[in-house]
Amino acid sequence: MKAAIIAVGTELLMGKVTNTNAVYLSSVLNEYGVSVLYHITVGDNPKRLEDAVKSYMDEVDMIITTGGLGPTQDDLTKEIVSKALGVELVLDPVLKTEIQAFFKRINRNMTENNIKQAYKPTGSMTMENGHGTAPGFIIEKDGKTAVLLPGPPREMVPMVESGFVPYLKEQHAEEITTVWIRVFGMGESSVEDAIQDIVKTQTNPTLATYVREGSIAIRVTANGASEADNMKCIQPLVDEIKARLGNVVYSLKDETLDVYVGKLLMEKKISFSLAESCTGGMIASTLVGQSGISSVFDRGYVTYSNEAKQEELGVPLQTLIDHGAVSEETARAMVEGLRRKNGSRLCVGVTGIAGPGGGSKEKPVGLVYISVYFDDTLKVFKHNFHGNRTRVRQTAANFALDHVRKMIEGK
Amino acid sequence: MKAAIIAVGTELLMGKVTNTNAVYLSSVLNEYGVSVLYHITVGDNPKRLEDAVKSYMDEVDMIITTGGLGPTQDDLTKEIVSKALGVELVLDPVLKTEIQAFFKRINRNMTENNIKQAYKPTGSMTMENGHGTAPGFIIEKDGKTAVLLPGPPREMVPMVESGFVPYLKEQHAEEITTVWIRVFGMGESSVEDAIQDIVKTQTNPTLATYVREGSIAIRVTANGASEADNMKCIQPLVDEIKARLGNVVYSLKDETLDVYVGKLLMEKKISFSLAESCTGGMIASTLVGQSGISSVFDRGYVTYSNEAKQEELGVPLQTLIDHGAVSEETARAMVEGLRRKNGSRLCVGVTGIAGPGGGSKEKPVGLVYISVYFDDTLKVFKHNFHGNRTRVRQTAANFALDHVRKMIEGK
Repeated sequence: MKAAIIAVGTELLMGKVTNTNAVYLSSVLNEYGVSVLYHITVGDNPKRLEDAVKSYMDEVDMIITTGGLGPTQDDLTKEIVSKALGVELVLDPVLKTEIQAFFKRINRNMTENNIKQAYKPTGSMTMENGHGTAPGFIIEKDGKTAVLLPGPPREMVPMVESGFVPYLKEQHAEEITTVWIRVFGMGESSVEDAIQDIVKTQTNPTLATYVREGSIAIRVTANGASEADNMKCIQPLVDEIKARLGNVVYSLKDETLDVYVGKLLMEKKISFSLAESCTGGMIASTLVGQSGISSVFDRGYVTYSNEAKQEELGVPLQTLIDHGAVSEETARAMVEGLRRKNGSRLCVGVTGIAGPGGGSKEKPVGLVYISVYFDDTLKVFKHNFHGNRTRVRQTAANFALDHVRKMIEGK
Repeated sequence: MKAAIIAVGTELLMGKVTNTNAVYLSSVLNEYGVSVLYHITVGDNPKRLEDAVKSYMDEVDMIITTGGLGPTQDDLTKEIVSKALGVELVLDPVLKTEIQAFFKRINRNMTENNIKQAYKPTGSMTMENGHGTAPGFIIEKDGKTAVLLPGPPREMVPMVESGFVPYLKEQHAEEITTVWIRVFGMGESSVEDAIQDIVKTQTNPTLATYVREGSIAIRVTANGASEADNMKCIQPLVDEIKARLGNVVYSLKDETLDVYVGKLLMEKKISFSLAESCTGGMIASTLVGQSGISSVFDRGYVTYSNEAKQEELGVPLQTLIDHGAVSEETARAMVEGLRRKNGSRLCVGVTGIAGPGGGSKEKPVGLVYISVYFDDTLKVFKHNFHGNRTRVRQTAANFALDHVRKMIEGK
């Protein structure tokens, strides 16, 4: 099946908003075997929208629109798509009641133009909007399908999950099952090289790799009679990929490294504290992003100056003089100080040169020492990272989390 | 002038990469008076690319392509666009030498297919690529213009700045001058309401508002004989907008709030330290993102537990018992403790309930106290923020920076 995704909104063409809907929808459609041939963005212009719907509808089986479902005069997607497909709009009493109820719930008066949102293309399926007033619709006509979704991602994504994905699943006679393999510490091209023979020869399951949030996600998707059947062909493939890639595989769920490590610390009840220099609170902030982390996280220090390293962590002045703030010895002393002071089972220290200034021939920009003291084992890792200041700091934070993961899991 | 932006790359249609180029280019083109009518994404498919170029070229004056300029067989944008316009490709000896020099500089062997990148559309202008091997081109033919840019943003953006923007400027008989007004602490619709009469009646300068990085950017652009002339019409407008909006205007440069505050602290040589609870190191990490901050930043504490607040900052146990960790009194004690301990001129404390758990009727999720102790003045600000955990934390971090700005500037 072939599809085109049409985004509607002048604000996109003025460069006010990035169209993140297209990438999300493409990834979902690919998972369900739909090939996306085009992304198109048009403004709130009836003629150009109508022309686009008509011309792309000729070429593909399904068009998906995002945006233009709101209550204002500018919001014309439903009207234009219905017209282009030759489908009438009729007032739906159920929708009207739901929209009225929504306004009551949020304690606001419903204006007259919101009634516009209660009109439904004849014969279409309604997708409920749990986060706004504009419902979505799936219209089937003459072998073609039009899917109308709202523009704001916080409304669109939940509607896709609750309304559109079940529809896509129904289109398949077979069950679709996906397993994700998340990888950190290996580049995308290396991952692809390592598994390219599998990617190329496999037709069921199919595989695809994505770069997401600083790590790699491998999608393994199978079609079959049941989930159990699908897992029978997915599991050996997942095992093979894990065996080839080794311990760069950190999770078999589609989750970021920091979420994985945060959950690991909470599940295993490992108390931890942090001493960050070049990352400057980035690791603390990332882990604090997870609800419930207070059960294991006591405190963190951003020891940016040498004085802070001495006073807060007891790093000996002589160590700083002899080896410098960015050294294996200082990194070691930072976590020894954390342990003395707080007694946490896990102590993590980071010191490095994020740049652009401060580098030398012996200690170039990107040199970072990460120390991890877990129970009785203290290890210091030396890295040379590339890129600008932000990149060096983000990579250092991610590698620190990855070292923590490996030491806790004994890898 | 009307334009269409065509992105080329199957990875975009598979949902692997978000097309951030379109939003950037649209914003630049709008600044130079070019209306963008369409964004289109097509895969690495010669037929579909050719059809798109031909059909959109009929409707607009300028098409801008991103991607497909690389050395591989899949990279066909230059070939297809030249074909569609009826322009020949010829080997350019200057380009060949430059590409060879690039490979020498990065110490890699140039492969045979890189020669493909030295072919140039006849009569086109070359735009140099400072960050990769693929040059860009501007082709003018029969009153239409095609602009060919590389796909990776780190190559595309510098090429637009050094090659495409000068071309856009030349197209104007007049000089174009832009001033940005950055605003924090007021929603986009309130900003628009406050200045909508100016936006609607002005034709030169023109105004547009953008939401960027948690704050608002207002663009004021004038056309005229010279920059001095332009500033004569821009300045009264900027003054009027500043007068209307008041101290929510933080900068007349296009910079984020954290960059503005970081520079302010460095320029005024104000030593500072931080005590973060719910933001968990986010403020520290943001400010450490700026090179040179070590001249004023000594240390930060992520005092997540009550014990950490007592031990690191000397918050009295009785204060925590009487008022709770999220209270005006605790926020005050946090910065008093910082001052006692480090003697920094500026001490900032944040304590709040980020959610989703931990809220009560008296202290709901989103309740955040921000304390700022600058020289002899200590203020505590109470906020009720909305949204999920990440949103509450980010908003709290931004408001803390904004309070710092206002207190330092005496606003």
